Amino acid sequence: MEPLDYLAEERNKASFDVEEMKIVWAGSRHAYEMSDRMARLVASDPVFRKDNRTMLSRKDLLKDTLRKTAHAVKRTVELNLSEEESMTLWSYVDQPSYANLHWAMFIPAIEGQGTEEQKQKWLPMAYKMQIIGCYAQTELGHGSNVQGLETTATFDPETDEFVIHSPKLTSSKWWPGGLGKASTHAVVYARLRTNGQDYGVQAFIIQLRSLDDHSPLPGITVGDVGMKFGSGAYNSMDNGFLRFDHVRIPRNQMLMRVSQVTREGKYVRSDVPRQLLYGTMVSVRQIIVSESSCALSRAVCIATRYSAVRRQFGSQNGGPETQVINYKTQQSRLFPLLASAYAFRFAGEWLKWLYTDVTKRLKANDFSTLPEVHACTAGLKSITTSATADAIEECRKLCGGHGYLSCSGLPELFAVYIPNCTFEGDNIVLLLQVARILMKTVAQLASGKKPVGTTAYLGRVEHLMQCHCEVRRAEDWLKPSVILEAFEARAARMSVACAQTLSGFSNPEEGFADISSDLVEAAVAHCQLIIVSKFIEKLKQDIPGKGVKTQLENLCNVYALSLLHKHLGDFVSTGCITPEQGALVNEQLRSLYSLVRPNAVALVDAFNHTDHYLGSVLGRYDGNVYQKLYEEAWKSPLNDTDVPDGYREYIRPLLKQQIRTARL
Amino acid sequence: MEPLDYLAEERNKASFDVEEMKIVWAGSRHAYEMSDRMARLVASDPVFRKDNRTMLSRKDLLKDTLRKTAHAVKRTVELNLSEEESMTLWSYVDQPSYANLHWAMFIPAIEGQGTEEQKQKWLPMAYKMQIIGCYAQTELGHGSNVQGLETTATFDPETDEFVIHSPKLTSSKWWPGGLGKASTHAVVYARLRTNGQDYGVQAFIIQLRSLDDHSPLPGITVGDVGMKFGSGAYNSMDNGFLRFDHVRIPRNQMLMRVSQVTREGKYVRSDVPRQLLYGTMVSVRQIIVSESSCALSRAVCIATRYSAVRRQFGSQNGGPETQVINYKTQQSRLFPLLASAYAFRFAGEWLKWLYTDVTKRLKANDFSTLPEVHACTAGLKSITTSATADAIEECRKLCGGHGYLSCSGLPELFAVYIPNCTFEGDNIVLLLQVARILMKTVAQLASGKKPVGTTAYLGRVEHLMQCHCEVRRAEDWLKPSVILEAFEARAARMSVACAQTLSGFSNPEEGFADISSDLVEAAVAHCQLIIVSKFIEKLKQDIPGKGVKTQLENLCNVYALSLLHKHLGDFVSTGCITPEQGALVNEQLRSLYSLVRPNAVALVDAFNHTDHYLGSVLGRYDGNVYQKLYEEAWKSPLNDTDVPDGYREYIRPLLKQQIRTARL
Repeated sequence: MEPLDYLAEERNKASFDVEEMKIVWAGSRHAYEMSDRMARLVASDPVFRKDNRTMLSRKDLLKDTLRKTAHAVKRTVELNLSEEESMTLWSYVDQPSYANLHWAMFIPAIEGQGTEEQKQKWLPMAYKMQIIGCYAQTELGHGSNVQGLETTATFDPETDEFVIHSPKLTSSKWWPGGLGKASTHAVVYARLRTNGQDYGVQAFIIQLRSLDDHSPLPGITVGDVGMKFGSGAYNSMDNGFLRFDHVRIPRNQMLMRVSQVTREGKYVRSDVPRQLLYGTMVSVRQIIVSESSCALSRAVCIATRYSAVRRQFGSQNGGPETQVINYKTQQSRLFPLLASAYAFRFAGEWLKWLYTDVTKRLKANDFSTLPEVHACTAGLKSITTSATADAIEECRKLCGGHGYLSCSGLPELFAVYIPNCTFEGDNIVLLLQVARILMKTVAQLASGKKPVGTTAYLGRVEHLMQCHCEVRRAEDWLKPSVILEAFEARAARMSVACAQTLSGFSNPEEGFADISSDLVEAAVAHCQLIIVSKFIEKLKQDIPGKGVKTQLENLCNVYALSLLHKHLGDFVSTGCITPEQGALVNEQLRSLYSLVRPNAVALVDAFNHTDHYLGSVLGRYDGNVYQKLYEEAWKSPLNDTDVPDGYREYIRPLLKQQIRTARL
Repeated sequence: MEPLDYLAEERNKASFDVEEMKIVWAGSRHAYEMSDRMARLVASDPVFRKDNRTMLSRKDLLKDTLRKTAHAVKRTVELNLSEEESMTLWSYVDQPSYANLHWAMFIPAIEGQGTEEQKQKWLPMAYKMQIIGCYAQTELGHGSNVQGLETTATFDPETDEFVIHSPKLTSSKWWPGGLGKASTHAVVYARLRTNGQDYGVQAFIIQLRSLDDHSPLPGITVGDVGMKFGSGAYNSMDNGFLRFDHVRIPRNQMLMRVSQVTREGKYVRSDVPRQLLYGTMVSVRQIIVSESSCALSRAVCIATRYSAVRRQFGSQNGGPETQVINYKTQQSRLFPLLASAYAFRFAGEWLKWLYTDVTKRLKANDFSTLPEVHACTAGLKSITTSATADAIEECRKLCGGHGYLSCSGLPELFAVYIPNCTFEGDNIVLLLQVARILMKTVAQLASGKKPVGTTAYLGRVEHLMQCHCEVRRAEDWLKPSVILEAFEARAARMSVACAQTLSGFSNPEEGFADISSDLVEAAVAHCQLIIVSKFIEKLKQDIPGKGVKTQLENLCNVYALSLLHKHLGDFVSTGCITPEQGALVNEQLRSLYSLVRPNAVALVDAFNHTDHYLGSVLGRYDGNVYQKLYEEAWKSPLNDTDVPDGYREYIRPLLKQQIRTARL
């Protein structure tokens, strides 16, 4: 018997080649095939089951993570997977684990900040996982402000050791993933003190647990910080706390690539440019941007498929009700998110290229593009993660009541995703960094300095300050040049307005603090411009496959115009467009939604998500939603018995009017 | 020893009488005192502990709910509490329970739709909780559209019974709170069939479980729908599913106030006006609006206190860092939410009055104001719950990383709150209902029909379509009349624009569907106007207490102007204000934030939330945040042992390089 496909009709409606779109989404045919292979490998392996995750106790959940991590390593070895394959496999396991921090933070910290000698000593053990490491920077009282950290590392010249100590409660390390229960080692950030002087924050490798029996070493207090948002989700991770009571480590465990402490206790800065350290930050944030499109695409895939399955109202003559996806209110909320998934995908692709480019430059000691690249990755990290977090919750709402069930997959996806808005730079703090670069760029225009990269448009500021949008009919909004100029003009005018306000302050720092909300808005405008322009650039490429490019053009227009509608106040109040042109945006959006509608299900099929990876009854590929919801319900622990535990003690006395004498 | 108060300095800064503000918030001195008494009663009772709730398994959590419910009933009896006291006590217990549905839905359904005879039979048992009931309306495949329900109730004249049946899987009752495990009875909505005809959806009282041993009766399949969003939160509730296999009930268990089925099986409609049924809906939604200010005030209280405790950046000469609440970015996100809490409080107060008023009118068979009252409660339910859900998450973000810990209280508050956006009318569906009334009102203007109540301003539509905002300096934005006219003009112009677009469609229903997103935006504008205008009206009253009124005036301005800034596109593109006037809004907001800043902590103290009710380490009254975070962390189940469960099987083989041979 053929398997039922409740969405077959939807799939038949598509007017483009889905298989080709899958390759565009994946980035290349190779990436698509490899990724597809890994996804199926994970989906077919019973150890990687995750459908019961939200019902596990915290202890069972951690144990499950430990098991999956070990199993993933085992499979990597057995199948002799490449690094790329192994990382992809791991991403499909889709469960936060100490291993993430070991590979993505602990090892890169040593690679980036260790001397050759240190790298030779530690990295082979780390690569083989003979030691497990985490990255212990933030403290109970100190998050974003690294310079405010309180843990001390005092050099003792008598023994040639550092004494690591947590002087106050607020100096307890707090949050590092993998720290609580799994890690044997950590890269710890602490204030270097030697010869009675404070030399600021430096990194040290410190062993935390015995390699024999895993018990914490003397002077180390370590544990789990407790339950976090949601069930399942990030609770699979042992985010930890860590306190030091005068723990001694040899001098050579300070990571000394950039600064050293000599045998005599003298602090020396090497000639290695500190800017090199930014490379890692750019790399991590670039990965976060790429991952935003994964998370967003999952939510959108679930909401789109279920919106096509679900029917509500509009039955005529006893016929079926209307598919929810046909309602304009649904389309106007869902399709911009679908478009955002593609937009963020291409932005992530471009950032990856940018990272490669800047890495080459850094190797050649060319630091010229670094500030702009730094601002750009910071800004895109901020706006893609904020938008994705909001979008996942919006997708949940778009699924109506059933989106609230854990088995919809959306609650856990939301809970596990939102830390992205806070870690690796709080999103508001990052936008203020972008704003700082923008203000600097605008200030330097007068001196004739030519802005580069994503700020290049500010070089045409005179034109952008006085240009007029030429839209007369709704279709005019489909021209990429028109869209681009509107976004450039808006971003330029908002930056210039902030710069002008700032110039009115005698103390620029006070001014910056005072108008910081306006600066954040200007930074958002700048970052949205980047994403729109990279989407438009992508479409200048040759994109094969029947109808593929047309679909992407529609999505690009939906992305840009829905942003324009959402931020209409910016565009109209800066005079970039007129109210009438704003109304035409709305009209054009309605037409675009009609074009997206028949292709919507195929456009989310192109993400190539397995049912395992989606983890959603509502987002199932076959659309057989209701049968599976009913089956899932039966798995509730409360359905183990007909009569609930507690009936005799707490319900029966009420019904029998014996509550006064009941012992509760 | 005096207890430490880390926030004492903040409290000293306040320039108003907090005790008087508490009375304003509570609504009256009586309400304040009663509420304070109940809050302390709950907080001091160990049975009502909730600090371990997010760590309980689903079964233990339900058992905990059953226990708390029975205990609350017992305390009500022992202390001889009034209905008001008992309800308030229950609200402070702060745990979703089957009892909510019994009292707020099952009993009112019988009261509203039962005949005198039916009320005499069922209500005494229900009041004494000799039976426990729930409200079974929504089905697996049918939520908002009640007319689409599939469960059938077929009259059998032979036996004078109805046969209740679930013909399809999608007709399974799904979601009703209390249905899964606790309820013995339900008011069930089903399609009435008699004499071979379908008479649409009617309500029936049906027994589900044996009163002897609580087992489901023959033909009844009932259970829990499974895990929902978050840990703790709404998982304390046994939302259920229910299927009928030809279950027979006597004819007199159809609720027959409005329509009857005779002994012969004839369907008869009584002369009781169906509009009376709307009264219940208005009542329930009015309560939801009131509760939105409770939930919002809790989130805002937590975020405000912790923003005053938390310091980040800005240390000068080694001194303490800057309190996060001093940053303008923090203020511009937090203070509008603080203002919203007060705004929604007063909107709720006013709605309560409106409900009393309409109840009186209904009793006198005056249905004239009903459509407007209905639209008004629907609209306010929609925008207050949506804003509150978003605000809770925003408050979590405002607490940085620590807001992600369950012990911050914010994750659970969010998870437990968000169903408000979906139940009792999906928020978008409700806004479309509001839009329908607005379109009707605008259409009737031509015929000279005078709009009433909250739509009265549309009677001045000619003026509002051409008026010009007179703001020249930022301070001009402090005039209530200026604010009010801007909001009225915006709402009127958006409604009129929609009405004009609609008139271009030959099929009005198609037009309505096509521009439904614009209609939703017009409805939002209308509802925001209501809240702004009710806040302004409140301030026309005599409000005693040093500085109390001044604070409320500041908050009213913050509320209105932050909305104006957020929806600037609406105001500027409809020509209600100029871009320059929009910029002055921003300037005035900055000044207002400076006025709110020193009073912020006192303004959240005025909510009079106990630490028990807040359930947040970050929101503690004494501000002793870090010590308590550390103590809470130790309670994590993972900290029961130094070495985690799973170490030997899944970590050690990795470290010892024995993964190939490990059995995982």
